Amino acid sequence: MAETFGVRLHERIRELGPLCVGIDPSRELLARWDRPDTTESLEFFAMTVLEAATGVASAIKPQVAFFERFGSAGFRVLERLVAEARDAEVLVIADAKRGDFSLTNEAYAQAWLSDASPLAVDALTVSPYLGVDALTPFFDAARNSGRGVFVLAATSNPEGRVLQRARTDDHERVEDMVLREVANLNHRDEGLGSFGVVLGATRDAPEFDLDTLAGPYLVPGVGAQGADANDVARLFSRCESATVLVSVSRDILFTGPERRPLHDVARRWRDDLWGVL
Amino acid sequence: MAETFGVRLHERIRELGPLCVGIDPSRELLARWDRPDTTESLEFFAMTVLEAATGVASAIKPQVAFFERFGSAGFRVLERLVAEARDAEVLVIADAKRGDFSLTNEAYAQAWLSDASPLAVDALTVSPYLGVDALTPFFDAARNSGRGVFVLAATSNPEGRVLQRARTDDHERVEDMVLREVANLNHRDEGLGSFGVVLGATRDAPEFDLDTLAGPYLVPGVGAQGADANDVARLFSRCESATVLVSVSRDILFTGPERRPLHDVARRWRDDLWGVL
Repeated sequence: MAETFGVRLHERIRELGPLCVGIDPSRELLARWDRPDTTESLEFFAMTVLEAATGVASAIKPQVAFFERFGSAGFRVLERLVAEARDAEVLVIADAKRGDFSLTNEAYAQAWLSDASPLAVDALTVSPYLGVDALTPFFDAARNSGRGVFVLAATSNPEGRVLQRARTDDHERVEDMVLREVANLNHRDEGLGSFGVVLGATRDAPEFDLDTLAGPYLVPGVGAQGADANDVARLFSRCESATVLVSVSRDILFTGPERRPLHDVARRWRDDLWGVL
Repeated sequence: MAETFGVRLHERIRELGPLCVGIDPSRELLARWDRPDTTESLEFFAMTVLEAATGVASAIKPQVAFFERFGSAGFRVLERLVAEARDAEVLVIADAKRGDFSLTNEAYAQAWLSDASPLAVDALTVSPYLGVDALTPFFDAARNSGRGVFVLAATSNPEGRVLQRARTDDHERVEDMVLREVANLNHRDEGLGSFGVVLGATRDAPEFDLDTLAGPYLVPGVGAQGADANDVARLFSRCESATVLVSVSRDILFTGPERRPLHDVARRWRDDLWGVL
């Protein structure tokens, strides 16, 4: 790829706005779409949402768990979604929250961040429980292939707070440590960096100065989870524009299986977010 | 299944000993086995290690990343391994380190811990960065299907220590919080519990009193990573016997592709560990 993920994402957000549409084909959502819980429905759901998101969202975020629940057959659908999104020029962020260390992370990076893989996406979410340093194979693979990584920092769910706000022996909160270590991977003079974090819109601002990340924010928690566009705007008020990507899933997907209404709801979300971000 | 995972594992360790053989078909290991980096090699590797482990290991632990790196084709191999291991009556612990919250964890649980799934295993490793409480869908699914869960507590790699030894606002270390919360899921009066933790043999003992978990320990870090059988014995000296499962990968797998030598090396590891545990 000609450019880094950070630069591509930055341009895309400037052009299309800050919306990322989550693709969460849960059993519940398929039922809401009046579809049986099968891989055929999974594929219909994924392709319909991709079509509806095209032209109005900067990225889609398939939640890998909802494909994995069908085993290899689910992964085949995900591979097809990734290929179709590439053709439609929609960025794909695989929400996989993978995280291990050493050769195991190399293998996960090979799956998601290498040109040769059928699952190769633009960026991947990863989990730092084994240490941000242990995620180095993801960072190296992303650098080599012009892709990106979003490290979980402060997630949108309340159960994560105790751990994420625990303090290290240096009295730094875990979420601040993650933010600082990811910031160290980005280089300000090369445009928006390719190493971002996941920071829930339902969270209070961390102690870390958010405008110094030099990489993108992936922001869940908007809509059904309780935060609105203004909460996002407040949280990132000091950040450069077009560096925040807001993920909306249920509030769009509940619209149902018709492409046109889905597209219109996505556009309204995009416009609301773009108006304040 | 007639019994809980904890009870089945406890019996198996009493009968066959505390060895769990890791199945880590990395590019490096396939090269060491003189095989090209293909799904055919992946399948040959997985089936050979399963055969070599049968009768001498209580469980196998496929590292999911090394299958995932081939996308859906790699998952098909993993599905076949899971089915073959079931026929061979070898317990399977999928080392996937999955972890999210809410419906997403339900979907991962559907993939790994439900009877209907082609990936249904005896137990799954999960990661608590989003909070141990957020893992409840895994615990519920395991309870319902007689399966088990191992939550990462203190991993064997050095990069994880800063986070895992951070202190919550209640001044409890993260690793101790995980141990305590998993212990709360087990019921002493029902035999060994089905909710265990991953605790690296390379780690100092946590503050948590290890003999109160009432569930199994999955212990990596032995062999190439630096710890030996005596380190494991020291760490778990106060625990009831047959509650510790020690995972060995590279030190067995480096033996190469011949089933007999692999089996003999696995047996030596088993005997060494059994001698002190």
